[in-house]
Amino acid sequence: MATPNAAPSERTRVRRLPERARYDAETLAAIVDAAWIAHVAFPLDGGVHSIPTAVWREGDHLYIHGAKASRMLKALTETECCVSLALLDGLVLARSAFHHSMNFRSVVVYGRFELVTEPAHKAAALAAFTDRVSPGRWATLRPMTDKEMGATTVLRLSLAEASAKVRTGGPKDDDEDLAWPTWAGVLPLSLQAGAPQAEPDSAVALPPPLPTSLAPSAG
Amino acid sequence: MATPNAAPSERTRVRRLPERARYDAETLAAIVDAAWIAHVAFPLDGGVHSIPTAVWREGDHLYIHGAKASRMLKALTETECCVSLALLDGLVLARSAFHHSMNFRSVVVYGRFELVTEPAHKAAALAAFTDRVSPGRWATLRPMTDKEMGATTVLRLSLAEASAKVRTGGPKDDDEDLAWPTWAGVLPLSLQAGAPQAEPDSAVALPPPLPTSLAPSAG
Ligand SMILES: Cc1cc2nc3c(=O)[nH]c(=O)nc-3n(C[C@H](O)[C@H](O)[C@H](O)COP(=O)(O)OP(=O)(O)OC[C@H]3O[C@@H](n4cnc5c(N)ncnc54)[C@H](O)[C@@H]3O)c2cc1C
Ligand SMILES: Cc1cc2nc3c(=O)[nH]c(=O)nc-3n(C[C@H](O)[C@H](O)[C@H](O)COP(=O)(O)OP(=O)(O)OC[C@H]3O[C@@H](n4cnc5c(N)ncnc54)[C@H](O)[C@@H]3O)c2cc1C
Ligand code: HEM
Ligand code: HEM
Repeated sequence: MATPNAAPSERTRVRRLPERARYDAETLAAIVDAAWIAHVAFPLDGGVHSIPTAVWREGDHLYIHGAKASRMLKALTETECCVSLALLDGLVLARSAFHHSMNFRSVVVYGRFELVTEPAHKAAALAAFTDRVSPGRWATLRPMTDKEMGATTVLRLSLAEASAKVRTGGPKDDDEDLAWPTWAGVLPLSLQAGAPQAEPDSAVALPPPLPTSLAPSAG
Repeated sequence: MATPNAAPSERTRVRRLPERARYDAETLAAIVDAAWIAHVAFPLDGGVHSIPTAVWREGDHLYIHGAKASRMLKALTETECCVSLALLDGLVLARSAFHHSMNFRSVVVYGRFELVTEPAHKAAALAAFTDRVSPGRWATLRPMTDKEMGATTVLRLSLAEASAKVRTGGPKDDDEDLAWPTWAGVLPLSLQAGAPQAEPDSAVALPPPLPTSLAPSAG
């Protein structure tokens, strides 16, 4: 078994600024759980493609979904791919341009997606995804039809061959620059929810609970 | 010349939900300007890789930067690649699970990066990037050294072969579901700046201006 800070494979070993690398399942899971979007890179027709798509996690797999007819989803069952996702936590303002940076949490995963075909597993995955958008929501919805289930593909990718990279904290300025007369520090950034916008014909007026990964904003 | 809603090439033509596609330079530029991070897909060593990286725009090119020694940046001067970026604008809550969605703005670009080597162009690009983090910041910083410039690679990619996809508005529910007793609408999401966190030894106390693409939050 890999020790917490050993890469699971040679190609996942972070070489640039390796002190920012993490390979443990807990860190990987926490970052995937905070992300809504992943970017999937796959080879097709002699070139590479990068497509943004919604993502969620169950256990040690990352899940995606879409149309049965989707080019991307069809391609992904037939080839190895690489998925990356990144959360931007802040802009890091240093005394020199060179030491400017960003605070972030990111994950890169290699592997091959597998089709989730078993009906109970597929329904549970879509229910978990829907409940991620708003806790308890699945139970309040018009039930899924067989036709909808048939039109939808769910895929999952093991997080076994993955790496995380995390930057936190203030700028790492050169010692001789510390007194330079400019502001130095971090401008924190985060994804925030605004006021819910109900459909004019929504049968229920009270907005549903926010996703647990989002803090409410005053905006 | 391409008309505003014609794809610039066969591989950039959006096939799934093509009514959400845009190909005009103005839309592409506005989306890139709102993004901080792009994901770069490139082939190397027999596989594909997807790496998140900071992005900015000048004219009709998208720019990235990093270490001269970076594997990714070295690979990108020698191969075609695909870059995607996505902004999440909201969660779309429908009466059926099937019609849940996200509001987003995204861009996918194909092409080959070129090295920015001309010293004035390279310095101007890095200055523009730094001033994007905070307007006017470059002029307040300890000037860049030749050594720093030498250690840094700047690459740019033409936005000529690119597509955008944009979803806005509420859920598109089936007519027969409109009265279903659950809340329907949009939960808007946006990247927000929190209170600036100065370094304890920052020589200047007054925080610098926020990037123009970010609204201040009360958080
Ligand atoms: C928000 C954000 C902004 C960034 N901006 C820049 C930038 O402007 N310039 C820049 O040079 N770099 C930037 N990075 C870092 C970038 O993602 C790469 O780590 C870096 O460019 C080195 O790439 P490489 O392919 O040369 O890395 P290597 O270290 O050679 O990559 C080897 C392996 O390490 C793993 N790995 C590499 N990067 C990551 C990662 N970010 N997360 C998880 N695993 C990873 C992958 O498995 C990869 O195959 C940014 C990262 C994030 C998350
Ligand atoms: C935030 C976000 C979340 C998404 N979530 C999902 C999801 O959960 N499931 C899902 O099926 N789809 C999702 N999409 C849409 C996804 O990006 C693809 O458009 C879709 O999956 C079809 O992929 P394809 O390769 O089959 O598309 P095709 O339409 O065959 O792609 C052909 C070409 O169209 C262009 N193109 C495709 N998608 C985009 C895009 N998003 N932006 C700009 N150009 C594009 C590219 O040039 C691409 O090569 C999401 C998009 C965004 C931005
Ligand atoms: C303007 C002059 C700048 C120069 C010369 C410069 C140079 C560099 C170099 C050489 C690296 C590679 C580090 C490594 O892999 O060892 C790097 C990485 C990076 N730069 Fe810059 N940079 C500049 C500005 C900025 C700005 C303004 C930002 C923020 C908006 C920024 C964000 C980053 C990030 C996030 C990384 C990745 C660090 C990591 O992998 O953890 N840079 N930069
Ligand atoms: C739970 C049951 C769900 C099913 C059966 C389902 C099914 C689908 C299908 C079939 C598509 C492909 C559309 C097309 O390409 O023609 C799709 C796309 C998409 N789904 Fe879902 N979905 C479900 C839940 C969700 C949820 C909860 C979200 C939001 C968090 C979501 C977000 C999206 C997005 C953003 C797209 C892309 C639309 C576009 O390309 O513009 N889906 N979904």
